[in-house]
Parts: sequence; C-alpha cells; structure tokens
Amino acid sequence: MAVYTEVGDEALAAFLADYDIGGMVAFRGIAEGVENSNFSLRTSTGDYILTLYEKRVNPAELPWFLGLMEHLATRGITCPLPVRARDGAALRELCGRPAAVTTFLPGVWPRRVRQEHCGPLGAALAALHLAGRDYPPTRPNALGPGGWRPLFERARGQADGVVPGLAAELDAALDQILAGWPGGLPVGHIHADLFQDNVFFLDRRLSGLIDFYFAATDTLAYDVAICLNAWCFEPDFAFNVTKARAMLAAYQATRPLSADERAALPVLCQGAAIRFLLTRLYDWVNTPPGAMVTRKDPVEYLRRLRFHLAAPDEHAYGI
Amino acid sequence: MAVYTEVGDEALAAFLADYDIGGMVAFRGIAEGVENSNFSLRTSTGDYILTLYEKRVNPAELPWFLGLMEHLATRGITCPLPVRARDGAALRELCGRPAAVTTFLPGVWPRRVRQEHCGPLGAALAALHLAGRDYPPTRPNALGPGGWRPLFERARGQADGVVPGLAAELDAALDQILAGWPGGLPVGHIHADLFQDNVFFLDRRLSGLIDFYFAATDTLAYDVAICLNAWCFEPDFAFNVTKARAMLAAYQATRPLSADERAALPVLCQGAAIRFLLTRLYDWVNTPPGAMVTRKDPVEYLRRLRFHLAAPDEHAYGI
Repeated sequence: MAVYTEVGDEALAAFLADYDIGGMVAFRGIAEGVENSNFSLRTSTGDYILTLYEKRVNPAELPWFLGLMEHLATRGITCPLPVRARDGAALRELCGRPAAVTTFLPGVWPRRVRQEHCGPLGAALAALHLAGRDYPPTRPNALGPGGWRPLFERARGQADGVVPGLAAELDAALDQILAGWPGGLPVGHIHADLFQDNVFFLDRRLSGLIDFYFAATDTLAYDVAICLNAWCFEPDFAFNVTKARAMLAAYQATRPLSADERAALPVLCQGAAIRFLLTRLYDWVNTPPGAMVTRKDPVEYLRRLRFHLAAPDEHAYGI
Repeated sequence: MAVYTEVGDEALAAFLADYDIGGMVAFRGIAEGVENSNFSLRTSTGDYILTLYEKRVNPAELPWFLGLMEHLATRGITCPLPVRARDGAALRELCGRPAAVTTFLPGVWPRRVRQEHCGPLGAALAALHLAGRDYPPTRPNALGPGGWRPLFERARGQADGVVPGLAAELDAALDQILAGWPGGLPVGHIHADLFQDNVFFLDRRLSGLIDFYFAATDTLAYDVAICLNAWCFEPDFAFNVTKARAMLAAYQATRPLSADERAALPVLCQGAAIRFLLTRLYDWVNTPPGAMVTRKDPVEYLRRLRFHLAAPDEHAYGI
C-alpha cells in the first residue's frame, strides 16, 4: 500500500501542462507497490499511471529503467510505455521527486496462482529476455550474488531472533550457493522481481508486466529461477512441479535453455530463494512499528530455500 | 490508505457475474478512505468503485446509506449511484464482507482549499439537504451531541497525555456546548463528513460528493458547521472569513438559513469541532502502533474549538 507523497491538484495541473496528453479527468492514489507512490491518472486522452520515485530508488538509475521499458514496449512486450513530455523527457519532477507518466495496462494480478497462469508467464519472460538483447546500456544487479553476503551481515545479528539457528543455516547455505554459482551462463536484462502482483491477466491472457525497478543485467536463467520461486510453490510450501513444467516449457518454446542453464537450475533457485529471504529478513528486523508497509515473512523463503537445497538436479523442476 | 481485504480475481469474476455491467477489464486498490476497502473497477461498460465494508460499519445500516445515495443521485446530486445486481439488490457480499458497486465519479479532491472551492461546496451542500427531504427513513446520528460525552469518557484518562490540561478543557467545553445546543432547528439528512477528500472538482466545477457512511438525520445547519470547520481554516489555524462568506452565501442562495440557524452557528461550530476532536483523540490514544492508518492529530481541532468558543456571534463567520 503506497502513496507516500501527496500531489496537490494545482501541482498536478502544472505538471500535466508540459505533456500532450490532454486535461486531467480523474486522479486516485493506488494502494499497490511498496517502493514508490503510484497514482491512477485519467486525462481526456486516456488512462495513465503517474509514479513518483521515493527514496529507495536511485534517481541516477531512472533513465536506465525508463529506457528499458520504452525499449521493451516498442518491441511488443506488454509493459508500461513511458510517456515523453513535450521537451522529449520521460523523466521529470513533481513535488520535489523524480516523476514519470506511463501508459495504463488493463488486467488484474492473480491473487491465487493457477496452472493456466504459468505458461503465459514463462512465454512472457522469455520474450522479455529476447526483446532486451539490443538494449545496450547495462545495470549491475546490486541484489545479485555479490550483494548477498553484505546483506546477510547487516541482518545476521538479529536472524536467530526470527528463527533460532537461522544465522548458522544461512551462513552455510550462502557458502554453498556462492561456491557453486555458475559463471558463463547467458547474460541479459532480467526483470528480477516478477512476482504475482507484477503480472496482469485479462480474459486468461497475460496482459501486462509492470514494476521494472529491480531490473538489471544478470544471468537470464536466474530470472527463471526467481519465477519458479514466486509462482510454483503452494501456500503450504509444497513445490508444484506441474506449474513449473508449464512455465519452463513455455519459456523454452521461445528461448530454449542450454544444458548448462538447465543443470544450474537448483543452485539458481537456491540463490533466488536466499536473495528474497535476505531482503525480507533485513526489512523484517529493520521496519519500524507503525510503518505504512506490510512486512513480508522471511520464513516463506527459508522453506523454499530448503526445498531447493534438497533438489538433486534440474529434474526436480519438471525438466 | 486502505485496502483491508484482498479480493481474489476468481472471487471477483464470480461476483461480477451477478451484475449486468460487463466483464472485468482492470481492478486496482485505491489508497484512500480509512473505513472500508475501495477498489477502482473497470469493466467493458465503464468505470465503477467496488467497496467492501469493513468492521467499523454496521451492516444493518448499509441499506440506509445505499438508499440515500440512490435517492440523491437520482435527484441530480453528483454522488455515487449504487449499481443493482440482476436480483435487484445493491448490497451484496464478497470475500465474507458486505459489498457494493457504485458509479465512478470523475474529478480530484483539492489538496489545498482555495476560495473558489467554497462557493460550489456550499451550493452542493444545500442541494444535498433539499434533495434529501423526501427520503423517508431516518438514521440517528451516533456521533451527534448525545454521543460526545460517552466518547469523551472513553478517552478522558489519556487526554492529558496528549495535551496537558486537555481533559479539564474538554469537560468544561462539553458542558457549555451541550447546555447551549439548539433544539428546534430544521432537521434532515446530513452528510456529516464533508471534508476535502470527499469532494471532487473538475475544471473548477464540483464534480462529486462521496463517502456517505457517516450520513445521518440531524440538524441541517450542523452540516454547515462541519464544513466551516473542514474548509475555512488555514494551515496555521487562522479562520478565513472570506472562504466562510463564499460558502455560506452559496448555501443560502439555494437554502436560506433561518435567523435561529444563523444565530446558532457559533455553538454548532463548537459542537462540530469537539466531535472531530473527540473521535481523533479516541483514535489517537487507541490506534496500535503498526496499524495501517494515519492517525490525525486531535490538536488541529482543539485550535478550531478555541476559535469557535471565542466567536461572539454569527458575524464571526462572515454573515
């Protein structure tokens, strides 16, 4: 739930005057997204999303994110298209914050993952990976493998207060995962946060991918591993291999995984699980009571991590 | 900021199947409103608001609220029109909660009140009062004068912790206000919560009144007093008599206040100030840390109360 910045109607009118998108018709804060302030904006020409970037986003990186979205949208990926103002800039300022207008995507994110979602998701992820190939600028992944140990060190002292023995378990898991991390797999631009609430469906078709603000240049198959974590576990943390098989088959129909990528799936999934476990753990022990965000339970990813650590090979994922 | 209930896409589709409003196109939580869960819903036939009524609302009273809105909307008041399902019912159930679909109103609520807002507000309030006259059912105002002392008693013990001496000051003010409370003024259905965020404007015209869930049958001029409190104080708590004059003149152009109503404005304004002071005080001392609502500072209404207690007569309000 997130509207951190109140946008005055006068400030908004002045802001919109620099765009060729018509006059304002309606404007409402959106109770989704935890990093930025998002507003549903209707003008006389259509519907848009206005995003104000809050403090967790580095303003210097915004042109990369917006450029990637524009690149992908113009290559047929159903992601928000940044709208340029009359001066040609997609990144502007409102209420003292960097701000951008993007197109509105129809659809609804699935509150409960069904098998029928997983094929379209896999296909869209593969298409995103292919469409990103000719976007030249790169962005290092701060939340990739190199970032995990520093992140762990900032939460280590409080880990055992969340789950007894967690610090030692994570220490050992990190050693194992980082030692076995695959080099040399195909690299490209990854979404890196393609959870359910970032994927819209409409009439059983995937209608939109949103929230590219964790996107980075990293191992493509790691993005697949993130989706296996996010989409293929049941509420009781059982791994649903039917969903995984549907996702991977659809992904491979567009971009076949190499033998090396397939063989690396267990460690990539371990890495993805520990990445979300660590950020959740850090937020869990550092979110002040009364903050207007919902803390997400890190234990959900500990359960996933243990599954992946026990996976003997890629066949555990249905291929 | 409020979405207390997650609505599943499957549950939503099943819910919408009972309406004649087309298929679902988009669905987003709205970060406004503190009592209920509100969603922006687009279907193939247009835009709607879906509201799930949470625990603060008494389900037995919902038919009265929805009936009033329908009554007002069909008499030209720009308020949400409840949409009836195929079975004729406007009040239904979703995710275990009472739920209703209403029409979407364009416009934006003014983050900063300007004088130009106050005339249209006064005119709309008077029109609402007139349009409500032939809605027969009544609803007692639980937050009217009879409710203030019980509310105060529930917060008295902690009042001095918010402002030293506040308990004694409120005790004396309540005695004075309740002793001087006017009987016999014209009664009707009042909105009772017509704050800025419940009034939309578009192209300098008032385009919508929303959130009727505090509406009740009470002294009409008390509703005027609530608006004087809500709209005519500057951020430094100075009373802006120019705004008050604009609001009252426009109100009276549609529904002239009687001499008794005009003379009662100071005590009505005192009562309105103490009503919001008391609910804010109660929420302030009873909102648990971590709750997903913003507590509103009760002191803002103590400042207003003191202004009204010092007002010698109705001329303090520009008439």
